[in-house]
Amino acid sequence: MKTIGIIGGGSLGLLFSAYLSDCYDVTLYTKTKTQAKCINENGITLHRQGEHHTKKVSAIPLEKNIKEADLIIITVKQYHLKEIIPFIKTLTIHTPLLFIQNGMSHIEILKNLPQSTLYLGTVEHGAMRTNMDSVHHTGIGTTRIASYRGEMESILPIVNFPWVIETDWYGMLVKKLVVNALINPLTALYRVKNGQLIHNSYFYKTMRLLFEEIAAVLKLDSAFNYWENALGVCSRTSTNQSSMLKDIQEGRQTEIDAILGYIQTQAAEKRTSTPIVDFLYGSIKGIEEEKGD
Amino acid sequence: MKTIGIIGGGSLGLLFSAYLSDCYDVTLYTKTKTQAKCINENGITLHRQGEHHTKKVSAIPLEKNIKEADLIIITVKQYHLKEIIPFIKTLTIHTPLLFIQNGMSHIEILKNLPQSTLYLGTVEHGAMRTNMDSVHHTGIGTTRIASYRGEMESILPIVNFPWVIETDWYGMLVKKLVVNALINPLTALYRVKNGQLIHNSYFYKTMRLLFEEIAAVLKLDSAFNYWENALGVCSRTSTNQSSMLKDIQEGRQTEIDAILGYIQTQAAEKRTSTPIVDFLYGSIKGIEEEKGD
Repeated sequence: MKTIGIIGGGSLGLLFSAYLSDCYDVTLYTKTKTQAKCINENGITLHRQGEHHTKKVSAIPLEKNIKEADLIIITVKQYHLKEIIPFIKTLTIHTPLLFIQNGMSHIEILKNLPQSTLYLGTVEHGAMRTNMDSVHHTGIGTTRIASYRGEMESILPIVNFPWVIETDWYGMLVKKLVVNALINPLTALYRVKNGQLIHNSYFYKTMRLLFEEIAAVLKLDSAFNYWENALGVCSRTSTNQSSMLKDIQEGRQTEIDAILGYIQTQAAEKRTSTPIVDFLYGSIKGIEEEKGD
Repeated sequence: MKTIGIIGGGSLGLLFSAYLSDCYDVTLYTKTKTQAKCINENGITLHRQGEHHTKKVSAIPLEKNIKEADLIIITVKQYHLKEIIPFIKTLTIHTPLLFIQNGMSHIEILKNLPQSTLYLGTVEHGAMRTNMDSVHHTGIGTTRIASYRGEMESILPIVNFPWVIETDWYGMLVKKLVVNALINPLTALYRVKNGQLIHNSYFYKTMRLLFEEIAAVLKLDSAFNYWENALGVCSRTSTNQSSMLKDIQEGRQTEIDAILGYIQTQAAEKRTSTPIVDFLYGSIKGIEEEKGD
C-alpha cells in the first residue's frame, strides 16, 4: 500500500493525514478551497503532549473526482455522508473504503455502495482541530477496524499509527454507539464534563435509566459489559467535554440523528417504546435549534 | 377581619404584606432578624409598572410563638414547611390558616394539623424580591383560594387584592401542578424562557411527551383542558424565566420534590411507570447538585 486518500478536513481527517503522511502518499480532500490552499502552503501541524510537528500533505478541495488510491478513508460526519457519495461512486469497485463515523445510521448508506471492499472504523483518540491546518492530539487512543464487506488484506500493512483489527463490525459499532448514546446527549443536556456522569449520583441514575432503555432496544447480550465499558470511558475522559457538548456550545449541528436517531429507528422496527430516548432526542434537537438561532 | 399574620419574607410574603397592609393590621414573620429589622425601619417597597410605593409593615423574626390573628397566610416554600409547623401548632385550633405552596406534597402535612379551618391557595402573580424589603410585582394575576377544611367565611371579606374563591381545592391544585410540572423543570433543564416551550417545535414535543405521562398518572378528566391551560400560561408568560430556572441559575434549592416528586409518589401508589418524569426528576436534582457545589 502506497497511496491513501482521506476525505474530510475536520479533526479526525487532519489527525489521520498528519500521522499517515510519514509513511504513505496522502491526499486530503477538504470541503473548502481555502483550507486546501492553507494546507498546501503550510502543511498540517500536529500538536501532542507539548510538542508540535509540521507534516507536508497534499490537499485538494472536494469538487471534482477523487483520485484512485490503495485506500480511501472517509472521516466526514454522518450527516455529511450523503454529499460525498456521488464522488465515491466515481471510484472503481476495487477501491477499498474505510468509513469512520459515529452512530450506526451510515450502515444503510454502505449497503448500496458498489465497492467490494468496505471497512468500518471507530476512533478512541481525542482530537481537536484548532484551525484549518492544525490539530491537537489530546487523547492517545486507538483505531478499531472491521470489515463490513471484503477481505482485510488491503488495510493490514498500516504500521505507524495504532490500528486494532476487529472481527465483528456490528459488535464494534454497537459498543461505540452505546458509549456515544449515553455520554454525548447527557453531557450536552447537562452541560457538564464526562466525569460528572459518574461523580454526580443523580446524573449516574439518569444515565442508568437511559442505558436500560437502549439495552432493551439493541437486545444487548451481557449488557453489564456495555455498561462497565461506558463507565470506564466516563472515568478515563472525566475532564473532557464530549463532542456533542462542544457542538452545542459552538452552535454546530450535533450527531444526535446518527446516535439516538438510529436507536429510535431500531425501536420502531422492533415496536419497542423508548420514552427517555424520545424525550432526550427532542431535547437535543431543541437545544440545537436554540443555539442555531 | 382585622389582623393578618404572614409567614415567609420571600417574594410572595412581601407582595401579600404590601397589598394587605392597606386595609389590615399585618404582621410579617421573617426567617432572619436582619430582614425583620430592615422592614421595621424602611417598610416594604412595592414596585409595579414603573411606580413604587412604600408600605409600613410590622415584621418579627420567626423564633418565638406566632401571635393569634384573624388569618395566618403561610407563603414559605414547600421544603421549608416542616420547620414552621411547630410554630403553627402553638396557635389555637380556631385560627384560620391559608397555605400557598407549589406542588401538592404539602397536603400530607395539612392532614395532621389540629386547626379546623384550613385554606389552600395558588398564585398567578409574577413577583420578584429584589432585596430584603423590596418586591417587584412583575405580572398582575390573581390568587385562587379553596377550603381544604372548614367554611370560607373567614377569608371572604378580603377586598383590596384580587381573590377568586374556588369550590374544589384538589382540582385547583392539580391545574397549577400540571402547569408547574411542565414549565418549571423543562425551562430549568433547557435554560430557556417560558415561551420557548411553545415556539421551539422540539421543546413543544418533549413537553407533550411529559404531559401525556403526567395526565396518565393523575388520571386527568378532559386532559385537553389542562394542556390548553399550560400552553396559555407559556404564551402569556413567554418572556418570563420560570421560578425553577431562576433557582438553578442562582444556586438555590428548587421545588422539584413538591412538583415531580409528588407525581412520582402518586405513580408509585398507582403502580404506573413514569420514565420521563423519573429521568427529568433526576436531571434537575443533578443540576441542583452541580450548581450547589
